[in-house]
Amino acid sequence: MKRVQRLPLRAGLLGGGQLARMLALKGHEMGLEIHVLSPDPRDPAAQVVRHHHRGDPASEADLKAFFARVDIVTFESEFMDAALLGTVATATRVPVHPRPEIMGRLQDRLRQKEFLESRRLPTAAWREVSSAEDAEAAFHAFDGELVFKKRRFGYDGYGTYVVRDRAALRRAIDAVESDRHGFIAEAFVPFRREIALMIARRGSGETATFPFVETFQERSRCLWVKGPIAPRARGAARLPAKLAAGLDELDYRGVMGVELFETAKGLLVNELAPRVHNSAHYSLDALTLDQFSAHWRAVLDLAFGEARPLAGGFAMYNLLGSHARAPSWSLPANARLHWYGKNENRPGRKMGHINGLGTSPGNALKRLTKARAAFDV
Amino acid sequence: MKRVQRLPLRAGLLGGGQLARMLALKGHEMGLEIHVLSPDPRDPAAQVVRHHHRGDPASEADLKAFFARVDIVTFESEFMDAALLGTVATATRVPVHPRPEIMGRLQDRLRQKEFLESRRLPTAAWREVSSAEDAEAAFHAFDGELVFKKRRFGYDGYGTYVVRDRAALRRAIDAVESDRHGFIAEAFVPFRREIALMIARRGSGETATFPFVETFQERSRCLWVKGPIAPRARGAARLPAKLAAGLDELDYRGVMGVELFETAKGLLVNELAPRVHNSAHYSLDALTLDQFSAHWRAVLDLAFGEARPLAGGFAMYNLLGSHARAPSWSLPANARLHWYGKNENRPGRKMGHINGLGTSPGNALKRLTKARAAFDV
Repeated sequence: MKRVQRLPLRAGLLGGGQLARMLALKGHEMGLEIHVLSPDPRDPAAQVVRHHHRGDPASEADLKAFFARVDIVTFESEFMDAALLGTVATATRVPVHPRPEIMGRLQDRLRQKEFLESRRLPTAAWREVSSAEDAEAAFHAFDGELVFKKRRFGYDGYGTYVVRDRAALRRAIDAVESDRHGFIAEAFVPFRREIALMIARRGSGETATFPFVETFQERSRCLWVKGPIAPRARGAARLPAKLAAGLDELDYRGVMGVELFETAKGLLVNELAPRVHNSAHYSLDALTLDQFSAHWRAVLDLAFGEARPLAGGFAMYNLLGSHARAPSWSLPANARLHWYGKNENRPGRKMGHINGLGTSPGNALKRLTKARAAFDV
Repeated sequence: MKRVQRLPLRAGLLGGGQLARMLALKGHEMGLEIHVLSPDPRDPAAQVVRHHHRGDPASEADLKAFFARVDIVTFESEFMDAALLGTVATATRVPVHPRPEIMGRLQDRLRQKEFLESRRLPTAAWREVSSAEDAEAAFHAFDGELVFKKRRFGYDGYGTYVVRDRAALRRAIDAVESDRHGFIAEAFVPFRREIALMIARRGSGETATFPFVETFQERSRCLWVKGPIAPRARGAARLPAKLAAGLDELDYRGVMGVELFETAKGLLVNELAPRVHNSAHYSLDALTLDQFSAHWRAVLDLAFGEARPLAGGFAMYNLLGSHARAPSWSLPANARLHWYGKNENRPGRKMGHINGLGTSPGNALKRLTKARAAFDV
């Protein structure tokens, strides 16, 4: 076992949103000295740390000043300038995990698809699209049912174009022609349900796999998660080992969120996110290992222990803004509240989430749906 | 259900130790804006909050300045100037919970004994001692086996004198004569084991009771806790309801730690602590409701929900310093670490604790005792 010799260990977080906030809280719990780099002292993570460094994670000067103050760095979002991050990490000799090269590879949907295929991880058929001609060709190849996705910086439905007719194709082509990052086109996947999995790997090679969960999206935003579930699809049992082998090849350190489609033909990987993930927020109250602690353990190369559900079922319900007024709540009895402290409420914004347990996944979700009513968000 | 209308709610914590640190982390989790008043920015709680106010919780000026910045105040230790706190709370119209009058009453062992007797809560026979004559009389009344305790500000064995012979009586009398706070003497209690219970009450009158746990003390310091247990003693089943009635009389808001002796004649209350308590740290990872969240819910008058164990057994092991060198650790696999970030290690100092689950209380403790070896503290 590796000993952490130097305490306190100064751990740097790039970004100040809710993922960074929950990483900060769990980092504090295990005794890390957490430093946050973000633009606004009112950012969710900035509010819960002593060491907030006001700055722009996209600025080389701000990154350099920040790296000089910490022993190790991680991030809450893969949508950063990975090359710049790599340069600063090398110059300052402060390790970043997951490594910037991996961030660069996975933030690009095209390179992510190539990675999935190289590891024989099943994923929807796809093509590169960088012109109107490519788009037309994809439309024909995928029988007029397809999805165009920006190669980079798309999230929660932004940068995604579902195409089922020529009018939609026209709109997608406009986007392709006006965006320098390029697109990919994917065959439309008729899925039964969406599923997610969280896997963590540390430097020694040990991995920890969380249970499969079902995720439900409304208007491209995750509304709830329930689990544990057993996918009704071929290949599900082998998937964790195949993912672990993929992470080994990358020498990956950190948690990775895996979004999946359950289809009649088997499980397909929709997306890999090299970071903590909304679909695993349930783990804060429903597993013996939460994803935020797991991420720190991975980054610091410390043993994971088991990731076992604490009840027959669990659920997570996102508290999405439905108006722009100040939110109010009364804490419901049997739900654990995780509130992000965002400065402003607005429709669709993730303001917090609640976690709950039950005798089964469905029972937990039912209880939580009721508890959701206590919030006017 | 009461709605928290104003967000963020600014919650003030008096004191900067590990109890305040864990209150701060759980307060952040539920979205409170936590403010800490403590003397040193290196204090455990000061390290995990954006709003640290450097100052002395015993100073009227510092308290007043602090109260002007927050909406509600609570504390991590009852050993404060309760009268001063009450004056400042009244002057600034900022509520303090538990109320300062209750703090004043329970911080005095004599008045606490009177409270226990008034509620017919069983406790060891006792006498007031303010002179050598009183001490001699107590020695005779309790057949030469007794314990002298300072009325105020004693903790972890400090201010406690176990007397079984005349030489020890002489030392106790010296202490009685040199301390202006006065003492009580208690009949020595031959207990089978020490037990603890946590009970929470909120303004509406709702209470939540945690399971009974066994606590093990070494040199007057808690070393480990395991549970849930069923006391083998008369009166155990009725105790939670009697305690709840006592809290009702006080209109108490907050959690209260209850230390008990299991004796051949039944359960005896050893001590009430009007605050979060070391004996309930296990709840962070082993119950559906942790004591720190429960305290905030109590203070803010929000529903508790159930406080149910998440496994057949659980345990907590304190990481007590055994030397003055810098501590080092490797996180053990199946233990949750709560590290307090204290500036210096020293023998006997509580540096952190680990929590773990098992099939039974004994099994959980056995696993945790093994995990303890990963720490060089």
